[in-house]
Amino acid sequence: MRLILAEVVTIGDEILYGQITDTNTQWMSTELDKIGIKTVRKSSVGDQEDKILQIFEEAENRADIILLTGGLGPTKDDITKKTLCKYFDDELLINEDALSFITDFFTKGGRPMTELNRLQATIPSRCTYLANKTGTAPGMWFEHKGKSNRTTIFVSMPGVPHEMKYLMTNEVIPRLKKFFETPVIYHKMIRTIGVGESFLAEKIENWEDNLPEHIKLAYLPSFGQVRLRLTAVGEDEEILKQEVQDEIDKVLPLIESSVFGFDNDDLEVAIGKTLKRKGLTVSVAESCTGGYISHLFTKVPGSSAYFTGSVVSYDNSVKINVLGVKPETITENGAVSEETVTQMAEGVRKLLKTDFAIATSGVAGPDGGTSEKPVGTLWIACAMEGKTIARKLQMSNQRDTNINYGSVVALNLLRKMLNGDYES
Amino acid sequence: MRLILAEVVTIGDEILYGQITDTNTQWMSTELDKIGIKTVRKSSVGDQEDKILQIFEEAENRADIILLTGGLGPTKDDITKKTLCKYFDDELLINEDALSFITDFFTKGGRPMTELNRLQATIPSRCTYLANKTGTAPGMWFEHKGKSNRTTIFVSMPGVPHEMKYLMTNEVIPRLKKFFETPVIYHKMIRTIGVGESFLAEKIENWEDNLPEHIKLAYLPSFGQVRLRLTAVGEDEEILKQEVQDEIDKVLPLIESSVFGFDNDDLEVAIGKTLKRKGLTVSVAESCTGGYISHLFTKVPGSSAYFTGSVVSYDNSVKINVLGVKPETITENGAVSEETVTQMAEGVRKLLKTDFAIATSGVAGPDGGTSEKPVGTLWIACAMEGKTIARKLQMSNQRDTNINYGSVVALNLLRKMLNGDYES
Repeated sequence: MRLILAEVVTIGDEILYGQITDTNTQWMSTELDKIGIKTVRKSSVGDQEDKILQIFEEAENRADIILLTGGLGPTKDDITKKTLCKYFDDELLINEDALSFITDFFTKGGRPMTELNRLQATIPSRCTYLANKTGTAPGMWFEHKGKSNRTTIFVSMPGVPHEMKYLMTNEVIPRLKKFFETPVIYHKMIRTIGVGESFLAEKIENWEDNLPEHIKLAYLPSFGQVRLRLTAVGEDEEILKQEVQDEIDKVLPLIESSVFGFDNDDLEVAIGKTLKRKGLTVSVAESCTGGYISHLFTKVPGSSAYFTGSVVSYDNSVKINVLGVKPETITENGAVSEETVTQMAEGVRKLLKTDFAIATSGVAGPDGGTSEKPVGTLWIACAMEGKTIARKLQMSNQRDTNINYGSVVALNLLRKMLNGDYES
Repeated sequence: MRLILAEVVTIGDEILYGQITDTNTQWMSTELDKIGIKTVRKSSVGDQEDKILQIFEEAENRADIILLTGGLGPTKDDITKKTLCKYFDDELLINEDALSFITDFFTKGGRPMTELNRLQATIPSRCTYLANKTGTAPGMWFEHKGKSNRTTIFVSMPGVPHEMKYLMTNEVIPRLKKFFETPVIYHKMIRTIGVGESFLAEKIENWEDNLPEHIKLAYLPSFGQVRLRLTAVGEDEEILKQEVQDEIDKVLPLIESSVFGFDNDDLEVAIGKTLKRKGLTVSVAESCTGGYISHLFTKVPGSSAYFTGSVVSYDNSVKINVLGVKPETITENGAVSEETVTQMAEGVRKLLKTDFAIATSGVAGPDGGTSEKPVGTLWIACAMEGKTIARKLQMSNQRDTNINYGSVVALNLLRKMLNGDYES
């Protein structure tokens, strides 16, 4: 079975110059991967006709599917539609379905419709209109017979993430599945924390060397975590699944204590599952992490089953008045200390009446440290009935890294205590 | 003066298949932009030799500078160095500086050094070693004379963001400045909120049409905000600055009430500046936004000057016991109601003794709505001495969008009240 290849292209100066973050291409390649279509290249180009034409031609030579986002807005810098017309030697015409949708969109919203909005209903005459029910820029599907009679699919979608996602889910993916016969690609990810990439690699070297030809391993490190991704390519998903599971069964005993979950189970998701299964609740007292641990918990759907709430005690008065930290503890040891973070964890656990509580207090940076407590000094604590454990970390002067990494380490302390591991 | 062109290339299956988020290329193109180097293409390719060689060749034809990240880890799937050797017909040799740094790195960390780590000290013999003081993968700088005698710079850096940033800041940017003579590019961004892209475009159409040839305008929309980016290209920064400022002075009166700041001043930064200037403090009571508003405030360095703290009252017991919401208010109106969110805002303001307080309560989704309060229903409130304003939003069933957008709208309500606007 032939592998179907895709290219994902974002169009727009704003991504090229770094003014906005591209979250689309990651999501799109993940969705393609799920239906066995392999992304071979991702690219960003600016809003210039010659650059866009060049990438159309290159991509057509390399891939079967070219997914485009961006450049469909109502304003003058958006030229994707015009450029598609030029490439396919076509012309823009009003599409009646698109026009009636856009008219409705404005009527229902009670907003006036401008001429610019009306022009959004034009699309190249020979493409198929993909109804975007979440915005005014239409989706477009082109089946293009090039040299050597090979058909390439071009799809143009708006760059606004939720509009692109709507079109991909409801129009593009179903059409691609129908159009192509795809091989099966099966991924499984083992999620680990607390052990570096090269140490993991040495532990599992022998196993890795003996993986079958059609199963590949990749190491994906980030913030104290390493994901081990197994990718199997074949024709039968059930067989691939079993083969990958057999390999996982062999490797798990070698790395067990550092494994917290699989696939998309982020640390907070894995912890949430454990809390829910055991019928336990958690609360948080955050100083330097400033609400980020709470956000990690609450971005998970259904987290209200185990996450009760938290207190962000940025000012010391909140530590004292709300969490019940003793004023003399702060005077004698400072807010960034084992004693303070312990009282914060125990205080929020009592206040919010939860089984577990975690707390953080540190110097997030980039300024504000002392010689005794330099920027990046962070105390974390986790409290349960009859036991509180505190740990000290020394990080850098990068505020965002300190917030992210400190949150992950605090969550890992909770994970270990939930597993009855009070030592490591 | 010739425009210097750059391409930014990430190497690694993990980005291509969507398993990790690429934050590097955005940061890198922003840094290039600051020294007047224009990014013309960003690409991602996988860990396959032929794909990497192909992009090297293409990029060399298009750009003067090719910045590579990724594929330098110690494990078997990392092949960037070998592929660079093949492309430049070179060989890997131990670099003594790199080796002594790596040896030190492990000795100081008290960790054993593996053979894989030692191999990280090899680099192609003809490149310049760029000392990475934040990790074990070296940076590499190649000056490559291709066909037509044009010299292209290839730079290879690790994909770990803080290591790449260290190398860019301390090695790559200073070397690029030295090597190339670059034109001056000056950007200025006007940040607006609450008015859609096409309405803004109509309001400023006349002004836009009369912009001088060397000043370009772009619209960058996201989550209820639109950024207007002015880009001027020339030779003298002071002149460009003045010309752009003149244009801004003309356009501001047309859009004034929706402008909250300039350049990198995110909404929370702009609000923080206002609070600091006026000597005011703020606290937050979050239900559905779950800590995200607190995180937005506290990720800003120096926010402790005006952000006192917050209560994430996910469970109704926390709304009642900590924030003082009346139990009958929740029984009669529900937790997602004007009455509850008003009492939350007033409650946290009293508890944390701040001048202003904002509160959110909603159905974040994707499940949990009722016919009366469907998923995406969100109440926000902002309280000050003697006045509390509450607003209702109806959003979608996308949890992450609801959290992000709800947070932005709540912050905008605070912004308006800080400006004395209690109506719109």
